[in-house]
Amino acid sequence: MALHAIVFDAYGTLFDVYSIGALAERLFPGKGAALAELWRDKQIEYTRLRTLSNTYKPFWEVTQDALVFSCRKLGLELTLDAQNQIMGQYARLQAFPEVRTVLEALRARDLKLSILSNGNPQMLNAAVGAAGLSDQIDAVLSVDAVRKFKTAPEAYQLGPDRFGVQARDMLFVSSNGWDVCGAAWFGYQTFWVNRSNAPLEELGVAPNGVGRSLTDLLSFVGKGETT
Amino acid sequence: MALHAIVFDAYGTLFDVYSIGALAERLFPGKGAALAELWRDKQIEYTRLRTLSNTYKPFWEVTQDALVFSCRKLGLELTLDAQNQIMGQYARLQAFPEVRTVLEALRARDLKLSILSNGNPQMLNAAVGAAGLSDQIDAVLSVDAVRKFKTAPEAYQLGPDRFGVQARDMLFVSSNGWDVCGAAWFGYQTFWVNRSNAPLEELGVAPNGVGRSLTDLLSFVGKGETT
Repeated sequence: MALHAIVFDAYGTLFDVYSIGALAERLFPGKGAALAELWRDKQIEYTRLRTLSNTYKPFWEVTQDALVFSCRKLGLELTLDAQNQIMGQYARLQAFPEVRTVLEALRARDLKLSILSNGNPQMLNAAVGAAGLSDQIDAVLSVDAVRKFKTAPEAYQLGPDRFGVQARDMLFVSSNGWDVCGAAWFGYQTFWVNRSNAPLEELGVAPNGVGRSLTDLLSFVGKGETT
Repeated sequence: MALHAIVFDAYGTLFDVYSIGALAERLFPGKGAALAELWRDKQIEYTRLRTLSNTYKPFWEVTQDALVFSCRKLGLELTLDAQNQIMGQYARLQAFPEVRTVLEALRARDLKLSILSNGNPQMLNAAVGAAGLSDQIDAVLSVDAVRKFKTAPEAYQLGPDRFGVQARDMLFVSSNGWDVCGAAWFGYQTFWVNRSNAPLEELGVAPNGVGRSLTDLLSFVGKGETT
């Protein structure tokens, strides 16, 4: 298959959210891991409920709501200062160590590179800037444009629309198994960065390629171009 | 507000799913609770992903997929026999102890009573029969009719369509906080059977009433009729 462009998920795929959990642990000693896990689950859950029920609001707000719920559920007192510290960490995420090298190698192959994320534009632009990736990314696409979170087809459609290429000629890359399945259902070629060695979701679709970090993407793309 | 009909969620609201976890514990000693929790989460997650992505399949199959994934994730070997035993438990659920008394009292007030569930009709009819509730329920409504799971508006619309009454003149009752929020967003009056003393979801809507069991519903409905 032809490959014209690559679309990356953001959080957990390009940007390492580890520092958020580490900050949570400093603020709530002994509870940081539980808070980070519940928060992440609730954040995703709220995006899906709001999309199913047509009650969209921006990811930044959904993320804040999920933090408030998670602290209440775990019996943690969330001061405004703690909330601002944790949320602010979203604007200071680092890219995973291999990201820059991989993006440069892909650009050298004349591939268009973009981000397609649930994050709202302000969050995404802050993260791209903080991680120093502005010069590597051709387009930052936020689902905010369609007011539906992934895995809604309208969200995935942003990629083909931006580059004027069909989804089947684009590669969608995510560390989230469910995101890879959503993209595959939509029609993208898919690559799963399975950083946590998780089992494949039981959703009747499989990614075209799997790796443990983005570095593995290079050999996958290389193989694709020789066939 | 007028109240003409009550719509109940099924699993966890009328039917006690405790026996499924107990069976899981017998089959996988020491892992039953973890399996039951992960399985339930995955089951719900898969319903949402399949609705968002327009890849519906019946709840029975989704539930089976979630079981397979959960066992793989927990490193449990799921034999076909174990799978059949656990899934078969869904057809042998008991109603919570207060259900019959509450339904009879509500019927005595000339309220129409129905179930609106993600379950497919065969599952639901088996559960209603096994729990001995067939004579108490006027309608068993399955989202299978619209091939979208809750919280899609099309799913909640089944209630008003069945009884020819607007959602605001119906009460939706669920033990799941997210289901109550979805129903409230849709336009129902809502009552949350908060059996596990969970915090309210941070979704910008609140139920009209909250109780710890269905028994508390009787006083809520009584109050409503006197205003």
